[in-house]
Amino acid sequence: MYFSMLITPKFGDIDGLGHVNNTVMPGWFEQARNLIYRCFNPEFNFSNWNLILARFEVDFLKQLYFNQDVEIRTYISRIGNSSLEVYQEAWQNEQRCTKGKTVLVHFDFKEQKAIPIPAEIRSTLENYLFQPLEVKVE
Amino acid sequence: MYFSMLITPKFGDIDGLGHVNNTVMPGWFEQARNLIYRCFNPEFNFSNWNLILARFEVDFLKQLYFNQDVEIRTYISRIGNSSLEVYQEAWQNEQRCTKGKTVLVHFDFKEQKAIPIPAEIRSTLENYLFQPLEVKVE
Amino acid sequence: MYFSMLITPKFGDIDGLGHVNNTVMPGWFEQARNLIYRCFNPEFNFSNWNLILARFEVDFLKQLYFNQDVEIRTYISRIGNSSLEVYQEAWQNEQRCTKGKTVLVHFDFKEQKAIPIPAEIRSTLENYLFQPLEVKVE
Amino acid sequence: MYFSMLITPKFGDIDGLGHVNNTVMPGWFEQARNLIYRCFNPEFNFSNWNLILARFEVDFLKQLYFNQDVEIRTYISRIGNSSLEVYQEAWQNEQRCTKGKTVLVHFDFKEQKAIPIPAEIRSTLENYLFQPLEVKVE
Repeated sequence: MYFSMLITPKFGDIDGLGHVNNTVMPGWFEQARNLIYRCFNPEFNFSNWNLILARFEVDFLKQLYFNQDVEIRTYISRIGNSSLEVYQEAWQNEQRCTKGKTVLVHFDFKEQKAIPIPAEIRSTLENYLFQPLEVKVE
Repeated sequence: MYFSMLITPKFGDIDGLGHVNNTVMPGWFEQARNLIYRCFNPEFNFSNWNLILARFEVDFLKQLYFNQDVEIRTYISRIGNSSLEVYQEAWQNEQRCTKGKTVLVHFDFKEQKAIPIPAEIRSTLENYLFQPLEVKVE
Repeated sequence: MYFSMLITPKFGDIDGLGHVNNTVMPGWFEQARNLIYRCFNPEFNFSNWNLILARFEVDFLKQLYFNQDVEIRTYISRIGNSSLEVYQEAWQNEQRCTKGKTVLVHFDFKEQKAIPIPAEIRSTLENYLFQPLEVKVE
Repeated sequence: MYFSMLITPKFGDIDGLGHVNNTVMPGWFEQARNLIYRCFNPEFNFSNWNLILARFEVDFLKQLYFNQDVEIRTYISRIGNSSLEVYQEAWQNEQRCTKGKTVLVHFDFKEQKAIPIPAEIRSTLENYLFQPLEVKVE
């Protein structure tokens, strides 16, 4: 099971080579992670925010174009004690065009330290656990 | 009648004051103008592209927040011989939060000159003509 | 006298037509307004921030390209009681390619109301007052 | 030896947590890679462009703030037959705040295939070869 979000490319997302520019992708993946952020912060309130982003990586497999919506598929690829890894793919025209991983840490901003992921959230996230064959979890 | 598009704010669209940053709005309006670009370029093909953007302006009326989708309403506020003015609003939580106008010109890139808007496209655009009371067309 | 800032276009700033995309410009103008924000907020501290942006407009006069730095020239075009209008131009290859105006309001976020611009800041801003002939101040 | 570029954060680069948003970083790194793009495309001409981006990754080590310029340091961390890996760091206030790697491929767009990096370009790139101790080249 995965979270799905449809994104409409903007004219300015396309670069001089006629494809979606690579720097656009982290924003699209961030937008689709709203669905995960919502699990941790149901009210999307910045003053209680409890996640930090430690790392991301993106592989560009095929070009993305202006003329069709893009589906972002968001999975959980690993749940640690206080961190989780999100695995995402961008699909257009029935092809997987990019894939990426993002490491998030459940974080107490007042104490400035990582804190365990609560059992209830963990249990929700587990519904979206999926291990694509080609993804090696470090 | 207006074109409507729903947009999901991204985490990074919010700035240090806790609201959608002003520089985000031209991108959202551009995204919603896809519906107009499609009238002029049904295949969204850059090599035949026939529109240039001459000017835009945005008024920020109320703050936009992270926690709700935003509806962009797109109207045609004026159709000239070769140019048109697009009027757009961003709505969130039943409030109109920003409004903006954009001037587009139907343009022949090979000849590098403005060209008249064809009757067929004009007739489609007229369906979306709307003159909000507070908008003064120059 | 004007504030000057040099900006290096990024690959992704260029759109499918081979020019700097129009949505890039408000960000470049915002970046150059740092020099004005500094007059109001010498320490750039968000918790005491005292400016809101009410409106901007941009006119696209000539295309901007990838292969050269762009100079942003920032003037003050009007100083009101609590608001000011910033006039900016983007120059590349000795040509003025875009011009824009932005209305900022000196604002008390706690009281949620506009407050007068202090005499000291006003006096600094006046050094950058300039009225380009073609700019009509409303 | 490394390429160095200074970048001024924009107001809107800062997100609701008061730090530079993670999605900003690929754009800053892209901007600093202009210095490498110039080695391959001295005239920055899109119609002859000869590089594609296959992958990037970014690690967020410390927060970046609004109130100071950021130095991007760009090294070459690996030169293959047709590809190269660029290693970059973002420094602010004498601290290394992010690091990232990007894989570029020298590419013939007409033939749609990777092509060897010419000896002359390779020799220039070698001047910027640096292997930070903590970077493991796969």
